[in-house]
Amino acid sequence: MDYLLYLAPVCALVGLLFAGYQFLNIRKEGEGTELIQKITAAIHTGAMVYLNRQYRAIAVFVVALAIIIALILPNGALTAGCFVIGAVLSATAGYIGMFTATSANGRTANAARRGIADAFKVSFASGTVMGMSVVGLGLFGLSVCFIALGFILPEMAEATLVNILAGFSLGASSIALFARVGGGIFTKAADVGADLVGKVEAGIPEDDPRNPAVIADNVGDNVGDIAGMGADLYESYVGSILATMLLGAATGALHPDIPVASFIAFPLILAALGIIASIVGTFFVRTSKTESSAIHSAFNRGLLIALALVVVITYVASDFLLGDFGFGVFVATVGGLIAGFLIGQITEFYTSFERSPTLAIAKSCETGAATNIITGFAKGMESTIFPVIIISIAIYLAYTFAGLYGIALAAVGMLATLGISLAVDAYGPVADNAGGIAEMSHQPPEVRKITDTLDAVGNTTAAIGKGFAIGSAALTALALFSSYAIAVNLTEISVLETPVFIGVLIGAMLPFLFSSMTMLAVGKAAYQIVLEVRRQFKEIAGLMEGTAEPDYETCIAISTTSALREMILPGLLAIAAPVIVGLVLGPGALGGLLVGSLAAGFMLAITMANAGGAWDNAKKFIEQGNLGGKGSDAHKAAVTGDTVGDPFKDTSGPAINILLKLMSIVAVVFAPLFL
Amino acid sequence: MDYLLYLAPVCALVGLLFAGYQFLNIRKEGEGTELIQKITAAIHTGAMVYLNRQYRAIAVFVVALAIIIALILPNGALTAGCFVIGAVLSATAGYIGMFTATSANGRTANAARRGIADAFKVSFASGTVMGMSVVGLGLFGLSVCFIALGFILPEMAEATLVNILAGFSLGASSIALFARVGGGIFTKAADVGADLVGKVEAGIPEDDPRNPAVIADNVGDNVGDIAGMGADLYESYVGSILATMLLGAATGALHPDIPVASFIAFPLILAALGIIASIVGTFFVRTSKTESSAIHSAFNRGLLIALALVVVITYVASDFLLGDFGFGVFVATVGGLIAGFLIGQITEFYTSFERSPTLAIAKSCETGAATNIITGFAKGMESTIFPVIIISIAIYLAYTFAGLYGIALAAVGMLATLGISLAVDAYGPVADNAGGIAEMSHQPPEVRKITDTLDAVGNTTAAIGKGFAIGSAALTALALFSSYAIAVNLTEISVLETPVFIGVLIGAMLPFLFSSMTMLAVGKAAYQIVLEVRRQFKEIAGLMEGTAEPDYETCIAISTTSALREMILPGLLAIAAPVIVGLVLGPGALGGLLVGSLAAGFMLAITMANAGGAWDNAKKFIEQGNLGGKGSDAHKAAVTGDTVGDPFKDTSGPAINILLKLMSIVAVVFAPLFL
Repeated sequence: MDYLLYLAPVCALVGLLFAGYQFLNIRKEGEGTELIQKITAAIHTGAMVYLNRQYRAIAVFVVALAIIIALILPNGALTAGCFVIGAVLSATAGYIGMFTATSANGRTANAARRGIADAFKVSFASGTVMGMSVVGLGLFGLSVCFIALGFILPEMAEATLVNILAGFSLGASSIALFARVGGGIFTKAADVGADLVGKVEAGIPEDDPRNPAVIADNVGDNVGDIAGMGADLYESYVGSILATMLLGAATGALHPDIPVASFIAFPLILAALGIIASIVGTFFVRTSKTESSAIHSAFNRGLLIALALVVVITYVASDFLLGDFGFGVFVATVGGLIAGFLIGQITEFYTSFERSPTLAIAKSCETGAATNIITGFAKGMESTIFPVIIISIAIYLAYTFAGLYGIALAAVGMLATLGISLAVDAYGPVADNAGGIAEMSHQPPEVRKITDTLDAVGNTTAAIGKGFAIGSAALTALALFSSYAIAVNLTEISVLETPVFIGVLIGAMLPFLFSSMTMLAVGKAAYQIVLEVRRQFKEIAGLMEGTAEPDYETCIAISTTSALREMILPGLLAIAAPVIVGLVLGPGALGGLLVGSLAAGFMLAITMANAGGAWDNAKKFIEQGNLGGKGSDAHKAAVTGDTVGDPFKDTSGPAINILLKLMSIVAVVFAPLFL
Repeated sequence: MDYLLYLAPVCALVGLLFAGYQFLNIRKEGEGTELIQKITAAIHTGAMVYLNRQYRAIAVFVVALAIIIALILPNGALTAGCFVIGAVLSATAGYIGMFTATSANGRTANAARRGIADAFKVSFASGTVMGMSVVGLGLFGLSVCFIALGFILPEMAEATLVNILAGFSLGASSIALFARVGGGIFTKAADVGADLVGKVEAGIPEDDPRNPAVIADNVGDNVGDIAGMGADLYESYVGSILATMLLGAATGALHPDIPVASFIAFPLILAALGIIASIVGTFFVRTSKTESSAIHSAFNRGLLIALALVVVITYVASDFLLGDFGFGVFVATVGGLIAGFLIGQITEFYTSFERSPTLAIAKSCETGAATNIITGFAKGMESTIFPVIIISIAIYLAYTFAGLYGIALAAVGMLATLGISLAVDAYGPVADNAGGIAEMSHQPPEVRKITDTLDAVGNTTAAIGKGFAIGSAALTALALFSSYAIAVNLTEISVLETPVFIGVLIGAMLPFLFSSMTMLAVGKAAYQIVLEVRRQFKEIAGLMEGTAEPDYETCIAISTTSALREMILPGLLAIAAPVIVGLVLGPGALGGLLVGSLAAGFMLAITMANAGGAWDNAKKFIEQGNLGGKGSDAHKAAVTGDTVGDPFKDTSGPAINILLKLMSIVAVVFAPLFL
């Protein structure tokens, strides 16, 4: 058994080596024309400047929280140590992903001049680096910390070790908070700011290099969709494994015939083999056809092969490690895996303009912006029904077959193929950037067509990725909630008790408040950009004529500063709310808060993500020449919907994922305070 | 004790007599010019046609459900009897309110020619008729049914009698479903339909008699804000008293020194004396000043006097009836009373254009419709925080001082002055209609100024009324939820049990799905109106020139048919969901469903109501000449927000109140099925 545990760091290292291999492949690709290189350098530098400033802000936060943890918790110093390691590794994954993506975007545009196969290869390689870095660093850190804790405290019960390890997960959540919320504000402030002045006021097209905010907008794509998404899923990945280990310790106590260590090790081993399955899957993602359907098929092929491998692996591993209990665990894990896949499909259904919901939204643009907003919002709300049913069935099965341990495993199962599913997801922003670079570097139409195709596929995968991120966040938060109940020794949390009910009410309110804060933050930050872009258009002579260069850096600096400032308040809310409720109203009320926020937040996040995605694609549908095409009244109405949808789908919606998981892990880590 | 119970029907009759007296006062008022009479008659006839058709549809539904109840429930025939009586009395209250309002609107316009004091008197008298009819019929029916059940089943325990009486509350909820959801669809379909073609396409002003949908729009104001609001609050009023009686039976068993009958009678007696307090309050609502602030002061004076009287009454009655337990009951009741008042104030803060949230929304119109939507939606979400805190404190206090019985009493306390607060609320649509009639009958500017002032105040009281309706719905649903737990013998409903958690998830999803359905229903119904109005503009020669008359009736008929058709699916959902979850996943899961829907629905309802109210007033603020005034780009953006807000605040938001209460009472009445 003990030796099997070493599978986790070993497979994680394999994942990291594969990431390195893919990175070298990208660097072999030519950097393209001088103009491509110049634009790429601007985006790359902007992204790195943002990341460095963000990490400096995070460092202060992490050190402060580490000191608090070390001082007030039992085993505080070790917990704080895990916390710092968890945070640093998440930041490292984000850094690697951003560095790679902003190196790959120009190279993708350049490769597109040779054809779609090469361009696709470069952009997917970049996604693969991100995916493998996230799972590799997450699993490596978690397993090595756990093994190390065993050596440091050889006399300690495994359950206590896992409690200390929870610090690692809190570290992941802290980075996710900054990366997802701050990044979400950055990306949409830049986007909205650039569009409001550029497209609406100055009447120049999107991605026009004369727009001073255009580079900030491109940086934002990476900041939000690479670093933000990566940190979000790193948090889910780590959190779900940790919660399963915690519940494994409790479940193991009920099965004296099986070693407790097996229950604790199982999620680590499952994740480890999932990395190998993901690597195998990536080899099947390739195409030389130019239709977007071919790219979708390539992705689906890779994903399904990885999924199938994980199913086999789970069957063997659960039987080997957990004996009689293994079959129940197998059902729970595979249930989660399938649920994740189905939620992605539902998201695709609700946001693709080949399907009826988005088409209905597009049609509603004909009667103006108001009906577009109403229809889009209504469809977004409607889209909650199937994810709820899918998740309900998955957790019902998991619970029936393997108890609370099974529910946590469903989350691990959903994330077992994260290596490849994040690769698919992180491919999108690279393709998006490549499209922008192709536009700005005046590539011929046939090259632009290739990058446009890649970009269109990227929009779909991004929408699917958002659904998947929400689903996995909900399951992870649920698993952490169950661990919390064990940590505070509660065997029931009854909503008939008034403090618990009040906790549910406050919990349900928090996602609304949090979304409100992040949404208004985008508005405030965007307004700063608008002022700056207007100033540059007015003060820099020859800018509109193309004879003078805009000052890109200042726009990036403004976005960075506003994003970091605006995320302080929502961030504090997410950390303080559970602690205050736990201390004032007691551990039962905090349990209520976690459930209330999970239920309401799940609905709100899905509503926002799908409404936003559908508005975006409704606009794209009209821009393809339908319902009057570009410039028509319907198009104007669609643009309004798209602009409303931007903070919905890219800021507030995803930020709710973080809120749910962060509050849960805060409850787990600080559980000793509420006893 | 037994004799004290007769206070309830007696005071209820006093309330009804007072309603009759006010009605006669209105009829004494002159009917105005021939044109006023003609328009009034059109609205009156349209409203009555709608109501008759709606009641015919309801009759089928009520009879069908009564048969089911009679067949499957223990004491089914008596429960069905109470159910039918509860439904018929609610319908009667709605009929009286609508009849009065559509008689008073033209008379208000006519009285405005003599000055504001008379016009105000007529419109408030109409509100008073509605308020007193609702509380009078509600309390009369409930108390007489209860007394009669005692005679019919003299051997039966009081707790069983109250269980049978729950049918009355289900009857109230059934009417509320039709009146609020159907009415909400009608009113906004007519409004949006009239505006889209009239204001936007044909460029004629609001309330222009050439618009074929203008009468339907005016009818809609009554259908939604009189009949819908009245049925909603009738449901809360009856539901909260009934839940308190149910919990009183359980609480009484724990206090052997106090007769159980006292616990059961207390809410009836409190409500009875509240009617008298409300009548007294109405005498202080009068003014002869022309400022809107004077009207606000008059309302506040009347409300506060009624509130103060109820505080005194509660103190005396609780001490007299419940002895030592009386003080706790007093605190709980007054806590609810104050909470209701405060929630109204919060709503006013978030929706008045003299306050920062709405001003921020108005300001955001300068950068276009999208920023207006984002800001309004964000402010709506933000506005959930204080209502949650207020309700949490109220139920915490109530529970601490008087247990679950106290929580139910907080709801009764909140609604004790419903006679006057509904009067204030139902004054609004009369003033609104009067304004429209003054416009259409070409009254001189000074008369229009008076009706405009009354209308503006009415908008504020309507917003406050919506907040109050949501708050009381939430407390009523919570009280019914507690009664449900007793009905199914559950002493704990733990969210750590997976079926309960799944119930919470499904429950949280239902308000989103329900809102989506009602919102899309408005769109579909409005589209029918748009087609009809366009047809009339095209086919009726001389319509735009004012030489030919539009066909108002067809627009009303279309609105009616669509509204009734579109409400079937959401209505079925509200009734079927709790029954299915209760049967399939068990009574614990149904408890979870009620809590999940309550928490998520409360937030969504507040968000929608306040965002909608704020968008409306942001538009009015700009129309007063601010930020560019009418016709500016900011105004156009504000109109988009207002149009989005219409179904938010008048259809989907209020419909959630019904969903929460209806599902709870369905759970209570059908509890025997889930055991």
